[in-house]
Amino acid sequence: MQNFSDIPLILSYSIFAFFVAFIACPPFIAFLRKYKIGKNIRDEASGGGGAPLFAELHAKKSGTPTMGGAIIVLTILFCVLLSRVLSYYGIIDHSLLNRRETYIPVFSLVSCALLGGFDDWLNMKGLWKKGIPVTPKFLSLLVLSLVGAWWFYYKLNMTGITLPYYGFLDLGWGYPLFFLFIFMATGNSVNFTDGLDGLAGGLLIMSYSVFGVIAFSQSMLLLATYCGVVVGALTAFLWFNINPAKFFMGDLGSLSLGTGLGVIALLTDSVVPLILTSVVYIIETLSIIIQLTSKKLRNGKKVFLIAPIHHHFEKVGWPETMVVMRFWIIGGIGSVFAVILGLAL
Amino acid sequence: MQNFSDIPLILSYSIFAFFVAFIACPPFIAFLRKYKIGKNIRDEASGGGGAPLFAELHAKKSGTPTMGGAIIVLTILFCVLLSRVLSYYGIIDHSLLNRRETYIPVFSLVSCALLGGFDDWLNMKGLWKKGIPVTPKFLSLLVLSLVGAWWFYYKLNMTGITLPYYGFLDLGWGYPLFFLFIFMATGNSVNFTDGLDGLAGGLLIMSYSVFGVIAFSQSMLLLATYCGVVVGALTAFLWFNINPAKFFMGDLGSLSLGTGLGVIALLTDSVVPLILTSVVYIIETLSIIIQLTSKKLRNGKKVFLIAPIHHHFEKVGWPETMVVMRFWIIGGIGSVFAVILGLAL
Repeated sequence: MQNFSDIPLILSYSIFAFFVAFIACPPFIAFLRKYKIGKNIRDEASGGGGAPLFAELHAKKSGTPTMGGAIIVLTILFCVLLSRVLSYYGIIDHSLLNRRETYIPVFSLVSCALLGGFDDWLNMKGLWKKGIPVTPKFLSLLVLSLVGAWWFYYKLNMTGITLPYYGFLDLGWGYPLFFLFIFMATGNSVNFTDGLDGLAGGLLIMSYSVFGVIAFSQSMLLLATYCGVVVGALTAFLWFNINPAKFFMGDLGSLSLGTGLGVIALLTDSVVPLILTSVVYIIETLSIIIQLTSKKLRNGKKVFLIAPIHHHFEKVGWPETMVVMRFWIIGGIGSVFAVILGLAL
Repeated sequence: MQNFSDIPLILSYSIFAFFVAFIACPPFIAFLRKYKIGKNIRDEASGGGGAPLFAELHAKKSGTPTMGGAIIVLTILFCVLLSRVLSYYGIIDHSLLNRRETYIPVFSLVSCALLGGFDDWLNMKGLWKKGIPVTPKFLSLLVLSLVGAWWFYYKLNMTGITLPYYGFLDLGWGYPLFFLFIFMATGNSVNFTDGLDGLAGGLLIMSYSVFGVIAFSQSMLLLATYCGVVVGALTAFLWFNINPAKFFMGDLGSLSLGTGLGVIALLTDSVVPLILTSVVYIIETLSIIIQLTSKKLRNGKKVFLIAPIHHHFEKVGWPETMVVMRFWIIGGIGSVFAVILGLAL
């Protein structure tokens, strides 16, 4: 049980991160524009949803700068390191770099940002088109997840998860495999979700808020503060990512922030809340899986006009901003359920 | 200091209210459409911002049903009365109708909803155009605020407010006047803010969340739950109020939910948090005051292209949804500040 009087400090970190990122965004966007770090709208929609429909919906976005996630990641690192330096000199009494609470989130953030950034760079240079399959990204994510799985299993001695109404479920040596699944699933599903202006950004704000509350309720104050910093940086990003977006987060942002959710959920032993706050990411991923399966098994027949499902709703006539805001509401409901179960456990 | 284990129950009320309102909305919208309870887009923008500009921006909205706030108010009443009935039969151990915590919010909600609904009806019938000035609405609000002021002063024996870094400021007999100002200010400023699809709805969700947290931190669990119910009902309303809106909340919604904020802020002695979470409502109101003053003192010269300020941003080229989402972010930042001060006090 935590004291309410700790909440103002955590939220102050959010506000600080917001203003750092907010001030940094305009020059950063100018930089991205100058060096033409823009997005190539792929001919092939993810999930093979049909190139012409996708191009028709999003041709106007070609050229918008990407890798905007860098500003989020750098702001988070700046706040974490600043707290480390200030605590070193005794100016504040805590450092956000903490072995038990924040090593793994910071590690996954930085490594997946580098991986995602490389992916964005390949996309930008048009190298994807020249036939590099999805495998390298998948393989590198797999390697990173093995490092995380090793840390959780051997360093943190975690071997299971807690389920509501059931209690502790010991997975034994299956735990590293489970970690691997969660890591890959969160990273990729947030990546799929990041296809409309503001969509992933707004949803991630809610998901990180959920884990901020859960970490706080478990006395993991540094992890809660870390979540608060992420929320602040994301909110500043969102200001410029609102339709019509000035820049996109790119794989750099979606992979690093997505996998971060997964590891924080495991650190706080909150897999069921993770599933609830991820309702939109899961629906998006399922829409791709269903579409591909249907095309394969039913001689090319599709279930959705275009996958992932956010493009389907655009195609049936919802304006892009309506899809985004309604998906936010769905994510918000899921996040409230997540807090309910996360605190009631 | 409250126990975290009470939070899931409060949030469950939010979810329940959301689904009640969500299910009720479609038939309610159909009803409003059938009886043509639509909005007359006024020739005169509020604040005298210039009729032609306003008409140009919002002509397409003429005919969209209004009085959507009724679904919010009815959902809240349903939840409150349901808890009263269930607690009467001993099925649950609490009733949301409580003299110390929720009488005043429920009273202001219902009375201002009736007043606002009458106002919407006059507007719909085009009676505003025939020369009824703003005074009747103002006078009725004044009468209602006198009732509230009397209750706070004589029944609750409140005579002052607590300020950060200062402590208790005793206003003595000035307190009823202060109540009157807060009541009129919150009601009218939310009313001014309600001019773009989803704008007031989204901001009110944040403001009521702030007071939910503050009430909770002060052990006013029933008031916190009441705020949770308002948030749930508002979220369902927002789903259908997102651009392009299926209906508007109308004065019925904005006056009742706006004054509600004011009385809850006074009940929780949180005037400074009220100011912070109201940053957008205040900016909107100031933009009208500045515009009118400028036109009067500077021979008709305007400061904004059109007031309230949300239309100004539309006029300079921001899409409506961008104004809405960015104002949400500003309101969100203000609300985080509000929680910081509300809990740190």
